[in-house]
Amino acid sequence: MHVLIIGAGGFIGSRLATEYRQENPSASITLFDLHFPEKLREDPGFTVITGNFGEPKWIDQLLESKPDLIFHLAAVVSGEAEKNFELGMDVNLRASLRLLEKCRELGHQPRIVFASSCGIFGGDVRQIITEDTAPKPRSSYGTQKAIVDLLMNDYSRRGFVDARCLRLPTITVRPGKPNAATSSFLSSIIREPLNGQEASYPVNPDAEFWILSPRQVVRNFIHAASLDAKLIGADRCINLPGLTVSVQHMIDCLQKVAGVKTARRIRHEPDAFLQSIVLTWPPHFNTRKADQLGFTADRDVEEIIQNYIREENIQIDLHES
Amino acid sequence: MHVLIIGAGGFIGSRLATEYRQENPSASITLFDLHFPEKLREDPGFTVITGNFGEPKWIDQLLESKPDLIFHLAAVVSGEAEKNFELGMDVNLRASLRLLEKCRELGHQPRIVFASSCGIFGGDVRQIITEDTAPKPRSSYGTQKAIVDLLMNDYSRRGFVDARCLRLPTITVRPGKPNAATSSFLSSIIREPLNGQEASYPVNPDAEFWILSPRQVVRNFIHAASLDAKLIGADRCINLPGLTVSVQHMIDCLQKVAGVKTARRIRHEPDAFLQSIVLTWPPHFNTRKADQLGFTADRDVEEIIQNYIREENIQIDLHES
Repeated sequence: MHVLIIGAGGFIGSRLATEYRQENPSASITLFDLHFPEKLREDPGFTVITGNFGEPKWIDQLLESKPDLIFHLAAVVSGEAEKNFELGMDVNLRASLRLLEKCRELGHQPRIVFASSCGIFGGDVRQIITEDTAPKPRSSYGTQKAIVDLLMNDYSRRGFVDARCLRLPTITVRPGKPNAATSSFLSSIIREPLNGQEASYPVNPDAEFWILSPRQVVRNFIHAASLDAKLIGADRCINLPGLTVSVQHMIDCLQKVAGVKTARRIRHEPDAFLQSIVLTWPPHFNTRKADQLGFTADRDVEEIIQNYIREENIQIDLHES
Repeated sequence: MHVLIIGAGGFIGSRLATEYRQENPSASITLFDLHFPEKLREDPGFTVITGNFGEPKWIDQLLESKPDLIFHLAAVVSGEAEKNFELGMDVNLRASLRLLEKCRELGHQPRIVFASSCGIFGGDVRQIITEDTAPKPRSSYGTQKAIVDLLMNDYSRRGFVDARCLRLPTITVRPGKPNAATSSFLSSIIREPLNGQEASYPVNPDAEFWILSPRQVVRNFIHAASLDAKLIGADRCINLPGLTVSVQHMIDCLQKVAGVKTARRIRHEPDAFLQSIVLTWPPHFNTRKADQLGFTADRDVEEIIQNYIREENIQIDLHES
């Protein structure tokens, strides 16, 4: 079993690589990304290749050995794809198409688990989203992901690949530093205060979002890879389960878990650019398809925060006054 | 006012060119296609350019003079795109993307009327389709059209173009000869018997389809070009109005208009390939958006047949016994 993880240097990709190997110790795993954390780069249990997914030669080289299973997580994130249109089109659309074309050319019909996004939906935020809802992205990132979903479906229908597209909620809490995703603040408002730093959010506190933890998304990626294609049906897209939460609720939960002093490090700082994208994301989903297929979400926000604290070895002093 | 019609050699494009000029006599109109009917090629009222939309150099050349309005009707039809995957991807997807990219590069924000298709929908044929229904194409043609719809929306949102995507029902009655569209039989069963020839249909007679006449689709193209973008909204896609009709109803109407001898020239000839595509097209639409914007359909099938007979100067002898 040869497994290729594209975008394995990011925090979801890294965690996926490690957990996939734990569950599949006999798999031969190749990791590809622009950059890798040192721990992964020096791990003899992986074949680590550094390169740019946006450059065609890398796709050719990576596919040459005909991996049986490909996790495709490489992407220019939402804020960056909005600000740098060409880069987003090159990586999110053209490179993904090239990957599919190369699979078609090789003819070995690999299984692909693609990181799509709930950011493909947009517009009326009161609607309840299912897989039957028309994607109406209000960002170039969402447009590019929606297009690749369509391509994955058609290439699967024709037997060129065996794809499953997981539409990811906003993943929180991401460890590390803020990134260029427009949803980055949904991690910052938990992560930074726990590290004794200030954080801000750009929307009204009652704005709601559809979130999932890194732990659950990695579990869902591994689960997707194991599913029989027949169970998924002709539409290979799956809106992952999540939690609908307001920013205020996240702050309240942080306060419950880590104390009032920590929660007070968060402030409201409106940002029109971020609002123009994140407030078009509908936060209400009916994930019956995902639920029936065995995909899972977190129990609640407190559990998400507690898991983050445990995984990152953060010391909490609740007697901080 | 400089107008460019891409795919102007086809029967809808030709008719659009002629009727658009009638209504806009001062417009400078360039026609582009692989082939043209002689009448159009020698018409001094048009600039006629022969070339392949799939070749990038033509798009560059055509766009150089910065047309204010572009009708984009060039396509590899459904049956052909299903049988020749690469050709469909090249023309329907890549060339359309190249057109959009060239517009972005030139920066003059042309208005584009794009011939999309109701073939982007698929699956449960009992559902009632609106613009909020997720496209789930069961053909490569439908996939390619759905992707260009998404691109047209994003390029419009960003101000690179001002697009309106008309999702066409099956156009019937097409004059001329059968083509490689999987829906070609829906014209053949009217056209061929009226010309004294046999025709067949590949589905059960109670199978229903969503149809529109050439007359109405041309009118709707011209109407789309005149609409204020603000009226259309963020989603530039419009499912055109039409009629939901069974094959049997079309045969019955032909018999009413042209007699029983004519109608008896039609026979049932099942075809698994055609069924695998056309039977995935939902025939029920709620076209409130199109209706409110002033798009129109035919009154009934008899009117469609009578218009076809009049336009093609066909002689009907109802005393044929």
